[in-house]
Formats: sequence, structure tokens, C-alpha cells
Amino acid sequence: MTIKYVKNAVGRMIPTEINGKPVIPFQGPHGYKTTGWKYGPPIRTCGDYPDDGDKRVADLKTALAKAGLKDGMTISTHHHFRNGDLVANQVFQAAAELGVKDLVWFPSASFPCHEPLIEYLEDGTIHHIEGSMNGPLGRFASQGKMRGAGVLRSHGGRYQAVQDGEVVIDIAVIAAPAADPFGNANGLTGPSACGLLGFALADSQYAHNVIVVTDHIVPFPCIPWQVQGNNVDYVVEMDQIGIPERIVSGTTRITKSPDRLYIAELTAKFCEAAGIIRDGFSFQAGAGGTALAIGNYFGEIMRERSIKARFARGGSNQYLVELLDQGLVEHILDGQTFDLEGVRSMRENPHHVDTSPFTSYNYHGKGNFASMLDVVILGATEVDLNFNANVVTHSDGYLLHGIGGWQNCLFGKNVILPIPLFRDRIPVIRDEVTTICGPGELIDVIVTERGIAINPRRTDLIEGTKDANLPVKTIHELKQEAERICGVPQPAQFTDKVIAAIKWVDGTVIDVVRQVKE
Amino acid sequence: MTIKYVKNAVGRMIPTEINGKPVIPFQGPHGYKTTGWKYGPPIRTCGDYPDDGDKRVADLKTALAKAGLKDGMTISTHHHFRNGDLVANQVFQAAAELGVKDLVWFPSASFPCHEPLIEYLEDGTIHHIEGSMNGPLGRFASQGKMRGAGVLRSHGGRYQAVQDGEVVIDIAVIAAPAADPFGNANGLTGPSACGLLGFALADSQYAHNVIVVTDHIVPFPCIPWQVQGNNVDYVVEMDQIGIPERIVSGTTRITKSPDRLYIAELTAKFCEAAGIIRDGFSFQAGAGGTALAIGNYFGEIMRERSIKARFARGGSNQYLVELLDQGLVEHILDGQTFDLEGVRSMRENPHHVDTSPFTSYNYHGKGNFASMLDVVILGATEVDLNFNANVVTHSDGYLLHGIGGWQNCLFGKNVILPIPLFRDRIPVIRDEVTTICGPGELIDVIVTERGIAINPRRTDLIEGTKDANLPVKTIHELKQEAERICGVPQPAQFTDKVIAAIKWVDGTVIDVVRQVKE
Repeated sequence: MTIKYVKNAVGRMIPTEINGKPVIPFQGPHGYKTTGWKYGPPIRTCGDYPDDGDKRVADLKTALAKAGLKDGMTISTHHHFRNGDLVANQVFQAAAELGVKDLVWFPSASFPCHEPLIEYLEDGTIHHIEGSMNGPLGRFASQGKMRGAGVLRSHGGRYQAVQDGEVVIDIAVIAAPAADPFGNANGLTGPSACGLLGFALADSQYAHNVIVVTDHIVPFPCIPWQVQGNNVDYVVEMDQIGIPERIVSGTTRITKSPDRLYIAELTAKFCEAAGIIRDGFSFQAGAGGTALAIGNYFGEIMRERSIKARFARGGSNQYLVELLDQGLVEHILDGQTFDLEGVRSMRENPHHVDTSPFTSYNYHGKGNFASMLDVVILGATEVDLNFNANVVTHSDGYLLHGIGGWQNCLFGKNVILPIPLFRDRIPVIRDEVTTICGPGELIDVIVTERGIAINPRRTDLIEGTKDANLPVKTIHELKQEAERICGVPQPAQFTDKVIAAIKWVDGTVIDVVRQVKE
Repeated sequence: MTIKYVKNAVGRMIPTEINGKPVIPFQGPHGYKTTGWKYGPPIRTCGDYPDDGDKRVADLKTALAKAGLKDGMTISTHHHFRNGDLVANQVFQAAAELGVKDLVWFPSASFPCHEPLIEYLEDGTIHHIEGSMNGPLGRFASQGKMRGAGVLRSHGGRYQAVQDGEVVIDIAVIAAPAADPFGNANGLTGPSACGLLGFALADSQYAHNVIVVTDHIVPFPCIPWQVQGNNVDYVVEMDQIGIPERIVSGTTRITKSPDRLYIAELTAKFCEAAGIIRDGFSFQAGAGGTALAIGNYFGEIMRERSIKARFARGGSNQYLVELLDQGLVEHILDGQTFDLEGVRSMRENPHHVDTSPFTSYNYHGKGNFASMLDVVILGATEVDLNFNANVVTHSDGYLLHGIGGWQNCLFGKNVILPIPLFRDRIPVIRDEVTTICGPGELIDVIVTERGIAINPRRTDLIEGTKDANLPVKTIHELKQEAERICGVPQPAQFTDKVIAAIKWVDGTVIDVVRQVKE
């Protein structure tokens, strides 16, 4: 059968079918309007659950069997334990022992710790992965070794896909740092404390079967119930669900690189010059070394000018928590805690609020938090001359990162990418990015160590910062400067095989990733 | 057209159709199994909502018009303001002004303050009410004056009906003591503070259009968001949404009646004798004068024996909050706050947790809190010799009360009804109750001022309390005693017209109420 392709609104050729399902091509950031209805999972009846609320079963394998695990099912997990997760591998080990084949793994993200799952991709237990593949699993897919195509979604897009019934989760396995026998669970206490469980919200609401796995059982009621026991079928106790030091690093530090610090300072100066930093403003910065430095610069500016931010969106970390504790930020609306201070603060401070992809990012809702942010600081592996950006592949073509909340955050009022002009002598600004993850019309400013490029659409920002003595250049100038130093890079070489689809926030496909020609 | 009737599992004759919809007859407490799917409301798109999150519109009428109000729609409200609600009447006043007819009002409960709505029932604006009708509206219905039949559901049954798509809410109007322009809302602060908004949860999740109405707007983010702005379409500010002194009385007091105090003491003694009051137990008592006294006796027993309760379910009030503050109760899992102390405690104490009909009562979930309770104290207007009980009609046949959480609480491990043997010289124990709201097999003990009757099914309780020197009698003996004093009461006289259906927790119909022959 010949595969048909169609050109989408950012000019990428997209197959009309992926994994046997029809594809809706990207139609612009707000172009596609759905007329569907939210997914309704099966109605359950209390009579089928224990009256005393004790849903514990012997072990994970028993729970999977009771949940009716069978060939071809979709199994989900969350990534709040990041590279310290001990649960997902056990799920598929149990599945393999049960002799089940062709499963779809639907994680909210995968990490290098999940490299052992390659065995189950190879032996047929897992058919393919729908979710970000950070590191080894992405490389495996890029080598054309996964049977189905990966489907990458943003955090909000994952919620959207589940809510809309685009992905039906047969069994969700939710690792929980604290849980009661009824299945109420949170991430605030216990040896594997990770702060919150927002990435598992859609799974708990919509999956046909929900298994909570914990190494810290507490008597009913486990409060707060970030995951509600009323959505849970089985509870499994095990010795250890995560490796604490890999869940929360406690060591995320501000960058010491002079270049990166300069980019951070320039970003903060730009925001101040543009009038973005004002009393009651809001911001979101990530947990990378540069982003942390920008948050600190924001703090300094607020201190100096005696103003405060109404809210900051996390990933939280010790630096953001300091701003909260000092009253410079009134609320942290947090999607994931990156260190122990973040966990402690969320546990103790009612103004450090746990959020979810539903509240923060879901594009198929009645608004979300992301579009309300005054300024958002994001990264990118590549940016093109139209400000289209890539976050999932490297310039060598390998799929090595997930989308995270990146696409969702593009809806913020001012979207700034502080990025080095080149990495390992490979320029970051390209004629065409390897993979388009976000359309340039939503990306406003690129800040590099050799100058700032403002998207020509944002005449207001160009006008507003023109007297600020900032090194503003065109994106073409920045590109030429990089190429003067590093030369013009060769584009990556691919076969025709589509190994992954990149979904936009509305479920359309904005780009695909192809097998790397090795 | 002749109406067909069918006899249900408690022997009541039920029409096969009510309000033009087919009826499923009651099949026993756990008899009916649904195989359906939860309701999925229409998918919305952020592009249709303001980027800055400000969803405020000029007034309620504008919001209703924008939400597309038209003839025949179902409009919901909640009853957290009890008899102090100022919003529901305005909704239908606005609807009348807009010339809309035949609406279905779907409140979580109605109160005497809603008597003005009789005008709109008479002029055709409202077709009928699905929800409890406390007082005047119930009398209006009992007189055969409402065009459609009322449909009464328990709190859990209301959630079930919405979740299952049995009732589709076109427009939910959620009165909120505090809200931000995005629609995040709670009941904790502001002049109309009522504690929580759990009765509006289903409405916020499933209604096609959600309007939040507030007299206390706060900047985004309003935390905690008991109602999530991501589910809200419009926000309306108005001067006053409730009358504080009727929302929370601040004056709910323990009974001073010697008979009632004796019943309370006897109830507590029975629980102690039966071994129900032990370390880590759980209980739910209401906010009536007798129930409050029972809670106090429980407190005394716990203090004496140096034990504590793991949790109590509210309706909370100053007495229950005292037990929490004194460490005798570890958690209050609260469905509605009955006084200002309840509101304060919920606002300040993380162990005073707001719950919802979803967590506590929904029978079509994966368990709920109600079945986990060691002991539940409930009321009744009548009880029959099989322990079937009535809470909605008086012995004169008038429909004057809602079901509340009563049916849902029947799933507790020990269900005790402390009731006077007669009221206004009318015996409470009958051959047949006027309306069956709960099947006798779920009701364990009747405590009256003249003795205790234990349901013969509960041989464990009979055995366990036999040496406790308690005035245990058969229910027949109690009935005879009442009739010796008051005589045998005349049953109420009805026409054939069905004026209301009483739903069981699973959506089946357990009984109907007929028009009173006046």
C-alpha cells in the first residue's frame, strides 16, 4: 500500500495515516475546530468494589491480570519520578511474564531509566510508545527499530488526546509516593515524594482500569487526594517505586557559564525594557541553568522596584520557592517539582498550588493558564528564519527529547527563547529546522549571547525596546554570524520511514520524524 | 394514553414512564447493573475563550443569553446557600424576561426562599423541578399544580444522573462566595462564605455551559479552586448572592428536649455496647439537635477511653470542629458546612477537607466514602415494620423534604435512625410508610425514647448488645406502644396522579409520590 502525504499549514509533508489511524494535518495555531464530545469511560458500580474501601491486591501482576490485561491494550504511566522511576519497567516485565503482546505504552514521558524496555519492544511485548522518548528510546525509534510510529504530544496535548477519546487508556498504572487502601494518593510525602501527580490526572479520570502503586501506604484518608480513590480500581504496595535522588535532584543549580549568564541577563533586561516586568505580572521559567538565572534576575528587578509577581508557573525549585517565601511571587502554580524545596513548599505553603495539564495546558478546555502568562522562557534545539522551532530532534536527526509543556507555553503573551547561537559548533538558527514543534507566529524573541532577534510580527516589542540600548539584530544577522564562525551545517539525512508524529496541542499533526540514515 | 405500572423490588407500583422518559424500576440495593458509558459533554477550544482569562460579562441575563438559553433547557443551581440563596430566583426572573419557556430546574436542593419560583412554574417559564423541594415548592407539587413530575435524587444520585448522562445540564449557574475572572471559585471567603461548593461539582464538569456568579471577585488565581475555571464559560459579578445569616446559621444548637437527649444518649450507649466506638473508627452525624447531641456523647466516650476517630463525615458544625481541634477526630471529610465555625475550620485546617457527592456518595464510581463509615446517624419521617424508611413525605402525604445524602449514607456499616416514637401524636412506625426512600435491609437500628429496635438481619448487633442492659424491643412492640398512646393513624389519601419520582442511588425508581386528595 502506498502511503499518501499531504502538506500541512507549516509546509511539512504529513502521511494521511499513522499507526493505521487517520491524521488531521496542522491547520495553524488556532485553525482546527473540533465538534466532538469528550470521552466517557465505562460507568462502574460501587457494588463491584469492596465496601470497606480496601482495594489492595497482592502485587502488580495480580492487579494487571484483574484489570484484564490483554494483547494490544494501551497502558499508561506518569513521569513525575523522571529518571528515578522504578515502576514502568516492572509493568512490562509483568506483562511479558503474563505472555501479553503488542501493548502500546502511553507514558507522559520516558527517560533513560526506561532503556530496559527496549527488550520488550524487541520481543513484541510493546508494539510502540506514544509519549516523549528522552534519550535511548528515542534513539532506538530514530534507528527505525520500533514497529509502530511514536506519537509525541505536549503535556496539554496528552490531556486533550485522552479527554477527547483520541487515546483510550485500558490500564493506567499510577506510581504514588503516598496512597491509602482506597486509592487516594499524592506526591507530597513518603520516600519517593515528587510533589504532585498532575501528569496522571487524565489517566485517573479516563482510563478504564486504574492501578495505584505505592511504597508508602497510609490509613484512609490520604490527603490531599491529588489522585482520587473514587477513580481507582486496585492498590498495590511494593518496596520501592522510585529512586529519590533521581526523582528530585536537590542539586539543580544556576548556570556558571559566562555565556549562559549573559544570555540570562540579556533576557531579563529585554523583559524590563519591554515593560513586561510590572507589579502583578506573571512568568514561567523552566528548571535549566539559564532559566534559573533568569528567574533570579527577575527577583532582583522586583526587589529593586518593590513590585511583585502575582504568580509564577513552575516546575518549581529552590530559587522559585525563595521568591515565594520572600513575598516577591504571590503564588506558584506548579506542574512538577524539580527539587526537595519544591516538594516541601508545596506540602507546607497553600500558595504553592499543584496544577495539572488540565488547568494549565489543555487546549480543548474553556481556557487554560498558559495563555494568561505575561512572559514565558523556553528552550529549543533549533529555530528557523521564520521563528519556527524544534525541541524534539537534534540537528543530526535523532529524536532525543519530548515536547513537555513547550507547545502549550507558546500561547503566553510573550514567548522568549534564550538559546546559545551554536552548540558543539553547530548553529542553532537554520534555514529549516529538522522538526517543527511550534509555529513561528507564536515565538516572539530569540535571545543569544550575540544578540536578540525579535519576531517582525511583534512590532510592539520592536518599538518598545528600541531605545533600550539592547543588541537587537535580525534573525538573519544572527544566523550569518553563527555560520561565519561554524560554517553552514549539513542537514541530517533520513530514510522515508516515519518513526514518530509530532502532534500540535489540538490533536493535529504539525510534523513527523523520519528514520535517520546511519 | 393509559399509563402502565410495574411493581418494583420493594413492592411499589411504578409507572413505566415519567416525564416522557422510560423508568427503570428499583431492583434491590445492589440489584441494577448499568453497562453504559459516562456522559461526555461537548469539547471546547481555548481559541473561543479570552486569552487573558477574563470571562466576565455584564450581568446574569447577558450570560444566560450568551450561553444560548432557550425553551426546554435544563438549568442547574446548587444549594450551598440553603435558605439564603439569592441567585436561583434571579436566574428564572432573567429567563422570564427573555421570554423563555418550559425550562427544567435542576437544583441540588430547593428551599422556602425559592417560593417566588411558583410564579414561574405557573406562567410556564419553568416546566418542572428535578431536585428536592423543601417546603412550599413541595406542597405546590403535592397539590398537583406542577406540569411535569418532580424527580428527587439523593446527593450521590444527582451526581450519578449527571455523570451517566441521565440528566444533561444545558446551563449551570454556580453561585460562588469567591471567584476570579477566569471562573476559579470557592466557598471559603467573601460575605456569602458557605465553606465549599461540592454540590456544584457535577454541574461544573458536565454542563454544556457554566456561569459562575459571585459577589466577591478576587484576582486570578482564586485558590483553592473548588470549582475549576477551566470548566467555566462566563463570570458574573453581582452585589449580593446570598444572605449570610441564612447561609450559615451560627446558631445550630444541641437539643434541649429531654426526650431527644435521652434518644441521643441511648444511641451513643448502643454504639458503645456494640463495639462500634473503637480507636480509629469513623462516623457521620447530621446537624439536627439530636445528631449534635450524639456527636457530643461520642466525644465524651472517646475522651474517657483515650481513643480517637480516624474521620468524621460532615455537615460540619462547631461541635464537630471542636472534636477536630481537640484531636478526638483526625479528619473531617465535609460535604457542607452548617455554621461559621465549619467555614473557618475548613479554611484554616488542612485536616478539615472539602468533599463532593463524587467522592462521598456517587454509587456509579469505584467505591465511595459512604460505605466505609462505621456508623451513620440518620433521620426519617416514617419507618415500617420491615425497616423501610421515608424521608421525603409527611404522614399526611405532602412532599416537604429532599433526600439529601440520606440514601447514600445507608451503605454505611451500621445505620442507626434515632427518631421519636411519634410526632404531633402521629406514630412514626407504620405498617407501610407513605413513601419508601430506603429499603429496610440497609437500615439496622431504630432508637426511640421508648426503646431500641434492631433489624433482625443484624444478628451480630443483637448478639453483641444482648448483655448491655439496653431497652431492646422488636419494631412491632415499638409500633404497638405508639399506637396504644396515639391510636392507629389513618393513611394519607391520594389521587392517581404521580407528582414526583423517588430515585434510588443507581438511577432506578424506588417509589413515586402522588397528588394529595385535599
